[in-house]
Amino acid sequence: MALDRLIEGIAKLQNPTVAGLDPVLDYVPGFIKEKAFTQHGETLEGAAGAILEFNKGLIDALCGIVPAVKPQCAYYEMYGWHGVKALYDTIAYAKDKGLFVITDGKRNDIGPTMQAYTTAHLGTVTVGQRTYVPFGGDCLTVNGYLGSDGITPLLDTCRAQDKGIFVLVKTSNPSSGELQNQIFEGGETLYGTVGHLCEQWGEGLPGKYGYSGVGAVVGATYPEQLAELRRDLTHTFFLAPGYGAQGGGAKDVAPAFDSNGLGAVVNASRSIMTAWKKSGAPETDYAQAAAQEAKRMRDEIIQEIGAISLPSVNG
Amino acid sequence: MALDRLIEGIAKLQNPTVAGLDPVLDYVPGFIKEKAFTQHGETLEGAAGAILEFNKGLIDALCGIVPAVKPQCAYYEMYGWHGVKALYDTIAYAKDKGLFVITDGKRNDIGPTMQAYTTAHLGTVTVGQRTYVPFGGDCLTVNGYLGSDGITPLLDTCRAQDKGIFVLVKTSNPSSGELQNQIFEGGETLYGTVGHLCEQWGEGLPGKYGYSGVGAVVGATYPEQLAELRRDLTHTFFLAPGYGAQGGGAKDVAPAFDSNGLGAVVNASRSIMTAWKKSGAPETDYAQAAAQEAKRMRDEIIQEIGAISLPSVNG
Repeated sequence: MALDRLIEGIAKLQNPTVAGLDPVLDYVPGFIKEKAFTQHGETLEGAAGAILEFNKGLIDALCGIVPAVKPQCAYYEMYGWHGVKALYDTIAYAKDKGLFVITDGKRNDIGPTMQAYTTAHLGTVTVGQRTYVPFGGDCLTVNGYLGSDGITPLLDTCRAQDKGIFVLVKTSNPSSGELQNQIFEGGETLYGTVGHLCEQWGEGLPGKYGYSGVGAVVGATYPEQLAELRRDLTHTFFLAPGYGAQGGGAKDVAPAFDSNGLGAVVNASRSIMTAWKKSGAPETDYAQAAAQEAKRMRDEIIQEIGAISLPSVNG
Repeated sequence: MALDRLIEGIAKLQNPTVAGLDPVLDYVPGFIKEKAFTQHGETLEGAAGAILEFNKGLIDALCGIVPAVKPQCAYYEMYGWHGVKALYDTIAYAKDKGLFVITDGKRNDIGPTMQAYTTAHLGTVTVGQRTYVPFGGDCLTVNGYLGSDGITPLLDTCRAQDKGIFVLVKTSNPSSGELQNQIFEGGETLYGTVGHLCEQWGEGLPGKYGYSGVGAVVGATYPEQLAELRRDLTHTFFLAPGYGAQGGGAKDVAPAFDSNGLGAVVNASRSIMTAWKKSGAPETDYAQAAAQEAKRMRDEIIQEIGAISLPSVNG
């Protein structure tokens, strides 16, 4: 089960974090852009070439430190289909380096359309007699507003192809409570209701360390809800965005973890990708600066939660 | 304002429908696939070539009958970045033929990431000294689960670039009520709450026919909620999926319209794209069969709601 692989990577590297790959051109050092623009001009192809080169450098420096990367689709779509090709190439490169890939697309739809998204991001597609991997992530973030019709099409593919999903439960943004914190007549919040659905959806995808293949996105910026949901959703692994640039710190995310130091993977994007700007490092050292920041974040969290151990597995 | 253009197109053609372009390879006639596979092999490029050719035939036959098309991103992403290139080419071709394009991506995220989606699907992106249109739709469907932080980044671009959005309110699927119909302590449903947010978000994007640039997705399969929301959300234009293959009929969608025959655009995808299969037409006549089905649907709805007239506009 896909999340078992993530959990094993976390334990091996003693690092429960994932590096976001959200490559805005402004984050990319000038020498990379110059090279790409010389080759392709100031075009979408040039932009896509620059972000791919930037990502490859980050991946080379981060693999062995972080167990996973999380490319955010929006930053690739922004550069048109050339950008989307860079997303494909980034995922392939990261997997080749042994990284676990969470494709952050927050996709949502129903029935056959959700099946098409599943095929796109987690599955394989058949053309005539041949089969292809359209994007090839290990996990996909999804939005559950449409109910079970939007989630169940994913589960068969997750089972068959060793993949997983993270469903938006309590997001990290300031206005996330506008809908998510509202309380239904039965006494449960919207986010709590979606959280419990995650436990249900995950029943068909059990994992060997106690966490199912249906994870939940819970913002590092809401430590109280993290703690509450960790208590309630005992089989649901969390993806916690909002660390670093959005204001969440190690103390804030600590409640997301169980007594083994498992239960969550914490994401940071901007703080890692732009570390070279903040540290004043020469731009050619951007990848080393990113690795340094990833190590700092790892140490900060491990100091808070202690060493990570895999629970013993029967059989 | 973008929805004014859609409304004018609807009134001009006396047709409040939008043709979904969800090109699964199974829907594509054999002669188109053979040509594409001969040229590109049984590859993702071949699949993308086939769906683009299929779409172009549909667009040629449908322009002049329907005012708008709605490509659904999932069916393009399914064929990898080559498929996403076919999405770009489809949008450009449709706009060139004078069609209004609703990109159905149900995108959602926060802050800078939502801004990146906005740039991708409704805006322009700068690379060095040059500016490009990444995808170029007129409207984008979005999911409001993350609250205002997920919507407000869209509004400035909508204003500046003459674009609009449709927010998921009450979706057409059987399980849409699982979350959306639940009632908050204040007495309002989740879908009603999101609907009222649409009215608020739309205040900054007023249109000349009374409908704002922030529309709502409300399924044609739920006539009661359509009627209720039409009464409540007087400035919110509806995109109503679920007609045809999903079971909604002309009587079901009638409550979505106001006394001018405005207020909604009804989507049908499969019933139009696969009309050639159902009618038993030779596969080379797939586009004419689609046009025939689009006319049938138009006539069926107009018979129910009467002629469409633009309200008089001051100034």
